[in-house]
Amino acid sequence: MAKTIFATPDDAEQAFYEALTQGDLDAMMAVWSEDDDVVCVQPGGSRFTGLAAIREAWRQLFASGMKIRVRTSHPVKTQAMLIAVHCVLEHVSIEGEDTMAPPMIATNVYSRGAQGWQMILHHTSPAPDTDGLLLQETPRIVH
Amino acid sequence: MAKTIFATPDDAEQAFYEALTQGDLDAMMAVWSEDDDVVCVQPGGSRFTGLAAIREAWRQLFASGMKIRVRTSHPVKTQAMLIAVHCVLEHVSIEGEDTMAPPMIATNVYSRGAQGWQMILHHTSPAPDTDGLLLQETPRIVH
Repeated sequence: MAKTIFATPDDAEQAFYEALTQGDLDAMMAVWSEDDDVVCVQPGGSRFTGLAAIREAWRQLFASGMKIRVRTSHPVKTQAMLIAVHCVLEHVSIEGEDTMAPPMIATNVYSRGAQGWQMILHHTSPAPDTDGLLLQETPRIVH
Repeated sequence: MAKTIFATPDDAEQAFYEALTQGDLDAMMAVWSEDDDVVCVQPGGSRFTGLAAIREAWRQLFASGMKIRVRTSHPVKTQAMLIAVHCVLEHVSIEGEDTMAPPMIATNVYSRGAQGWQMILHHTSPAPDTDGLLLQETPRIVH
């Protein structure tokens, strides 16, 4: 099977959230690097290290059959030659539920290797509310 | 005043946790990069972006006068030429309290510039408990 190659960190990030929305384990794992030191911190607070533990965590999540949609906003990005760091707000809605949960904050780190850009770290935690978050940005001075 | 230069990401990380333990705002801010896109997510879930907002968040925390000690363990590290990513468990104890809180999980990202290694992202969230965390590591195969 041809392996998907992501040309940019944004391509890898888009594939990550598509795989999450579709509950597609193979598509999800195609986003992850095969480096030893991959880390995934899920909103409940568990830290999974190594590809096998991370795969099992996503398998269990997707096996629950819960359909979710994730929209991201407010990205803050830093990119160097081989590593890119994105911090985004995740707005998660669950199919069949009208109410929108408070956003999550996710730090996503991508590394560039022979397979293009792949995820090496995903750390998500609950945020209090969007209003609070928006107040805590340093104003940008255009100069 | 001579600016401290950190020769390695580990040096910057050590200075970060020392500043946190000592409640020393100047020492804390010496660890942070002056890049526009610095981000700090504190355990309560607030996301602070930009140096001014981050400085104010630490100022308020230190102004409470609460004395804490932080020990880190279980580091998972990735380092490229210009960016280093550390994910650690933080064991926080509060002076005057006997009980040890459950650990926190922190993702710390450092960038290398003219000022040596400096922090560009700190994302902390509560972990459930250490026992649970230790079970979720993929066994390393020595080969």
